Amino acid sequence: VPNAGLEPFLTQIREGGDGIEIVTGEASAERYRDPFALVGASRAPAGVRPAAAGDVQRIVAAANRFGVPLWPISRGENLGYGGAAPFDETSVTLDLSRMNRILEVNAEDAFCSVEPGVSFEDMFEHIDSHDLPLWLSVPGYGAGSMMANALERGVGNALYGDHSSQICGMEVILGDGELVRTGMGSIPESGMWHRQKASLGPRFDELFLQSSFGVVTKMGLWLMPAPAASAAFDIALEERDALGGLVEVLKSLKRAGIIQDAPVISSFLTIAALRSKRSDWAEPGAPLTEDVAARICAEMGCGWWNARLRLYGMPDMVETSIGHVEDALALLQGCSFSISRWRQGDAMALAHRGVPSRVGLGNVRWCGASGAHIDYSVCIPVSGAEAVRQMLRTQEALSQLGLDYHSTFYLRERHMLNVMQILFDQDDGELCAAVDALIPALIADAAARGFGLYRSPLRYREIAMRQMTFGNDALARLHGRLKRALDPNEILSPGKDGF
Amino acid sequence: VPNAGLEPFLTQIREGGDGIEIVTGEASAERYRDPFALVGASRAPAGVRPAAAGDVQRIVAAANRFGVPLWPISRGENLGYGGAAPFDETSVTLDLSRMNRILEVNAEDAFCSVEPGVSFEDMFEHIDSHDLPLWLSVPGYGAGSMMANALERGVGNALYGDHSSQICGMEVILGDGELVRTGMGSIPESGMWHRQKASLGPRFDELFLQSSFGVVTKMGLWLMPAPAASAAFDIALEERDALGGLVEVLKSLKRAGIIQDAPVISSFLTIAALRSKRSDWAEPGAPLTEDVAARICAEMGCGWWNARLRLYGMPDMVETSIGHVEDALALLQGCSFSISRWRQGDAMALAHRGVPSRVGLGNVRWCGASGAHIDYSVCIPVSGAEAVRQMLRTQEALSQLGLDYHSTFYLRERHMLNVMQILFDQDDGELCAAVDALIPALIADAAARGFGLYRSPLRYREIAMRQMTFGNDALARLHGRLKRALDPNEILSPGKDGF
Repeated sequence: VPNAGLEPFLTQIREGGDGIEIVTGEASAERYRDPFALVGASRAPAGVRPAAAGDVQRIVAAANRFGVPLWPISRGENLGYGGAAPFDETSVTLDLSRMNRILEVNAEDAFCSVEPGVSFEDMFEHIDSHDLPLWLSVPGYGAGSMMANALERGVGNALYGDHSSQICGMEVILGDGELVRTGMGSIPESGMWHRQKASLGPRFDELFLQSSFGVVTKMGLWLMPAPAASAAFDIALEERDALGGLVEVLKSLKRAGIIQDAPVISSFLTIAALRSKRSDWAEPGAPLTEDVAARICAEMGCGWWNARLRLYGMPDMVETSIGHVEDALALLQGCSFSISRWRQGDAMALAHRGVPSRVGLGNVRWCGASGAHIDYSVCIPVSGAEAVRQMLRTQEALSQLGLDYHSTFYLRERHMLNVMQILFDQDDGELCAAVDALIPALIADAAARGFGLYRSPLRYREIAMRQMTFGNDALARLHGRLKRALDPNEILSPGKDGF
Repeated sequence: VPNAGLEPFLTQIREGGDGIEIVTGEASAERYRDPFALVGASRAPAGVRPAAAGDVQRIVAAANRFGVPLWPISRGENLGYGGAAPFDETSVTLDLSRMNRILEVNAEDAFCSVEPGVSFEDMFEHIDSHDLPLWLSVPGYGAGSMMANALERGVGNALYGDHSSQICGMEVILGDGELVRTGMGSIPESGMWHRQKASLGPRFDELFLQSSFGVVTKMGLWLMPAPAASAAFDIALEERDALGGLVEVLKSLKRAGIIQDAPVISSFLTIAALRSKRSDWAEPGAPLTEDVAARICAEMGCGWWNARLRLYGMPDMVETSIGHVEDALALLQGCSFSISRWRQGDAMALAHRGVPSRVGLGNVRWCGASGAHIDYSVCIPVSGAEAVRQMLRTQEALSQLGLDYHSTFYLRERHMLNVMQILFDQDDGELCAAVDALIPALIADAAARGFGLYRSPLRYREIAMRQMTFGNDALARLHGRLKRALDPNEILSPGKDGF
């Protein structure tokens, strides 16, 4: 139910005469929603579209005055985690997509500064058209916002794929309208803002990740300098249960410093779902047996598990490292691989450099015309045994509902991300309700083993946050105190924090 | 002047009967001071020495009750930046050195968990006596606390030398006594606490770096897995002004991915001061001319600038990289170097693995029997031209006071740290007063160029923090708000934040 302050709020914005666009009614409901909602999708009663940070300050001031909650989005492409929808229908969308300037791209020191509306596609186009020696790390869906993806700790490919780690310096508008530049941005005219993460004293950037403390209006992000050469290994594992061995081999390669990259391991269905439909392989309701799995793998030319890892450096360094990776992979039964090499001057191959694409979204039709996905993403130790245990538990839980196992592991320094895309059909209400019950059960099961989510669909954030109970909910109390300090009227993203 | 609450506070602690030690009078004044104070050193009126986190909570509660400020120290070895001294003499030292347990060392996943009192020497001894495949990064003075060094963003050698980047999960007691575990420590019994930096939602660890928001009682720190091989380049540059070229060469090696290490470049005096006294080379008050510099370099067998960089990996990878480093260094005039190689199974050489030592402190006698140092440390871009400019400005400013240029540059990803140890004699009151005026002038000069301190002597923190003026001191206001939220009675480290 839209709140009483909404009309006076919109009137004040409208009469401000400063070019803030307003979206209302059907247009708002259509635009600011989750296209992949599982059940009961909320839609925003209205949206406001600022063109600059000053507009955002005016909007936040008006929101405080009239008690209207704001739901900031950048480009609204948080697919699988809630899309553009607010937590509930009291919130007005603060739509930052018009603020889409690339403020700086520094090739010499390999960083950029962007506004919220800049997409991976925009940045790729800029780098490409200026022929800059920079490689972009891109997530599955290239139309999303670089800034929002980093703020939500999104994952891309290659060395710089942990996007939130590349954040260096922000401009943020707090819940009461105060505009702050973090880090070295606090020294006027500092050229260090996007070169140096910490200034003297505490560092505040990470307060604004997956948070409701402020609206980020500018961000520095580090980019990968183009290497002289690279090699891409495409690895296929025949057997499902060989996952554990592969994880251990990749872990040992990382520990030995042979690979700097964060390798990615994906189940065969993540490939099959891009190029076929479930109904191509099985009757509705019938399980995908191991026989069917073998047939899919054979036709797709892939393994049950498929991994990608990349090497970067000088050509001879890359060759030396290739030998070590080959030796290590030779230890694995049922493992085959191909190597693709690239050197400066070669035509660019997609396997090496990140190129933004919308192809990844093609998998949503897997289950039917009203197909959608919702993502359950958990962090576990880098361990073969844990990877297998995680696979068995989640695959079993999914299969009991007739759901398939679209699963990807990202190997990091000392933990792995396991992202499971649950593909479903929005027209199947019974299944949607079952998935809606499954995810909380998976969250509780993970917490019982000491594991937590890396990122949560908005609908389950409260449940996921409530697993963090140490010391009688001490972290939630700390979180709440900071919220009250920075957004005393609780204007920003109510519901996002899980309290 | 000790405040009125001091006696009742100490009485309550004393009568608590829980084994908290109390230090008062001369013992306190002697122990909790800055041995290298430039002028007017403050000393603590008393110290309290808890044995466990519960003791710290009781102390913080009593401090809140009686309005007694606390000045937490770990081992009190913050030499060059204020030592163990509080900002002023109202603060009671919260001396955490009895909490010195190594809680965990995990060789498989290469991390440890420590209490505040654990020194680099303690950890080295543990790793060595258990023959664990881990290499420690150590700062100049091995007797200091691992935790405190990371909290103050201390610098060590080798890949893991940016100590604050290795922090993964903390236990913190806030200013009102609330005990919080950050990150995955918030999920009970989680094995991920020291494996995974972020949990769902904002990350709070960096709030407690160089800050007064809480007392850290446990910390996870990542350690470097022992490599299969390494190579250490010792590089000497004959000419002072060749610094710029070396910086550019090292930058290009880092950009190309040839070196992962953060190379260190030090002026000849940092070496000479460890092995000789100023009076060995010049009359008191006489400048160290370039002729004298040449003589010192010849006798010490070093260059005007001396750099160290290390390569790690498999033996053949290290050899391949060595070739690229040699090629790059060959471009520099007046540059010579030696390479020391190490392989698993060889006796350990100091040049490769970090071994804690107290030798670095030997330089304080450079100027006389009451020698001391105070450190001025600034961050600048990774640029040869900026390095030379920084050198010229600071060397000139020092030489006008008859002070020598003990300077070290640490090359990071996109910035360099320049640590200048100002060596002086505490008995020379006139010189001390001059240095006391010089440092604020250097801070203001840096800020005018957009540069800020990496770490500040306590005495100049307010001046350094006040350079961060963007948006009418917006960052300071944010800082102040968080302080009030987490430590409402301003019990912790008054004066440390610069407001």
